[in-house]
Amino acid sequence: MYAIGERINGMFKSVAAAIREKNPEPIQQLARDQLAAGANALDVNVGPAAGDPLAAMAWLVQAIREVTEAPLAIDTTKPDVMSKGLEFAGPGSIINSTKGQQDQLDIFIPLAVEHDATLIALTIDESGIPRDANGRGEIALRVVAAAMEKGLEPHRLWIDAVILPVNVTQPTPGHVLDAIRNVKVLSDPPPKTMLGLSNVSQGTQLRELINRTYLVMAAAAGLDGAIMDVLDRDLMDAMIAADLLLNNAVYCDDFLKAYRS
Amino acid sequence: MYAIGERINGMFKSVAAAIREKNPEPIQQLARDQLAAGANALDVNVGPAAGDPLAAMAWLVQAIREVTEAPLAIDTTKPDVMSKGLEFAGPGSIINSTKGQQDQLDIFIPLAVEHDATLIALTIDESGIPRDANGRGEIALRVVAAAMEKGLEPHRLWIDAVILPVNVTQPTPGHVLDAIRNVKVLSDPPPKTMLGLSNVSQGTQLRELINRTYLVMAAAAGLDGAIMDVLDRDLMDAMIAADLLLNNAVYCDDFLKAYRS
Repeated sequence: MYAIGERINGMFKSVAAAIREKNPEPIQQLARDQLAAGANALDVNVGPAAGDPLAAMAWLVQAIREVTEAPLAIDTTKPDVMSKGLEFAGPGSIINSTKGQQDQLDIFIPLAVEHDATLIALTIDESGIPRDANGRGEIALRVVAAAMEKGLEPHRLWIDAVILPVNVTQPTPGHVLDAIRNVKVLSDPPPKTMLGLSNVSQGTQLRELINRTYLVMAAAAGLDGAIMDVLDRDLMDAMIAADLLLNNAVYCDDFLKAYRS
Repeated sequence: MYAIGERINGMFKSVAAAIREKNPEPIQQLARDQLAAGANALDVNVGPAAGDPLAAMAWLVQAIREVTEAPLAIDTTKPDVMSKGLEFAGPGSIINSTKGQQDQLDIFIPLAVEHDATLIALTIDESGIPRDANGRGEIALRVVAAAMEKGLEPHRLWIDAVILPVNVTQPTPGHVLDAIRNVKVLSDPPPKTMLGLSNVSQGTQLRELINRTYLVMAAAAGLDGAIMDVLDRDLMDAMIAADLLLNNAVYCDDFLKAYRS
């Protein structure tokens, strides 16, 4: 499972303050902590409050690049901010994310090709988030076709089937599991699957339990990666154990420690 | 998820001692504790050491019946001990278990019909435990056909696809997930699926983590029930959360408490 750490996000007060004050230290600490906890990549989101998101993204990426060369997932809906983030982050970055409608794909797929980046595509289009697994599959198919047409290799495409809070729409977690399974037969090789995990528990009172339970369910359905709180140790334990049970890592008695070392 | 409590088993020293000394109290306490923890049924196994397993089973079932009318899963490979256990446990009991070979099915299916019991059938035959999901599916299909022929209704048949310790054979957890999915399309209505969960972690050092992670994975694959340690609170929390995420229980903020009340 490919884990993208979600914590460098301006929606967190401490991150927003660091961006506002141009204080790199808290950001760099979050980068180090998430990588030490097992993150494969770091999400980078300036948040809604940044006055000049373009400048904020440039500063934020450079602050992180001072302490790590790990892949960064540039998290914005704005093409100019995305472009700036990819420029400073360098090749091998992740675009988080595009929607599945044509006008968005026409912008973000070429950006991915240009910057040698991986593209996360949400199964959302002009009609919004589909109600079921089939609707998600239809958008995913459109994205796969567009990626092929524009020269983005399948292994550089991640489909995010868009999980919603379980307390808002309880059938959705099941639909998303079906969608993850279905994406695996869309093409050969298939695109990878990604999930913005924490959304499943938004507004609930037992967030950690819901997050780790759903991550394991999605892993069983074939999920390849998640944007998640890698600082939640129980969540990472669950992810590591699921990988072991899916035979994606070799068993040893102290497999948690082995993963983290 | 249908949870069968595994703790009344002569393999545990305290249970073996209680059987030997004909002391009902520890057994009855285990029955009460497991039901309070959320067990839907209780497994009853006299263990390997019982000198006269027939008498031991009769005594054990009667001791439990003094404190609860909950369904009992009579756990023995011996037809005469099974028959005695079913007789004292009453209708609505569970046969745990038969193997999938013809000579065993010829004994245990009629026993299930006679005693108005549910039958757990392991995907094991004269050649042993199949190496993959297809082998498990073939045995399951044979069991389903035999059950139909002998008048055991599909909802009274549980297929157990036989999990093995992950530290002994690491591909097996994945095969069993596939087998669970495949059993669901064997007939309409399909048989239910069951798992002797704790076996997945036998001999490992992080048993609880492996048990609860695999239970959630199997739930995502469609597992209907498990024989498990219901006194493991984190395991039950994971099971309850998985049921919620599969929309098998209605969300409320305190869903753990709601399940247990």
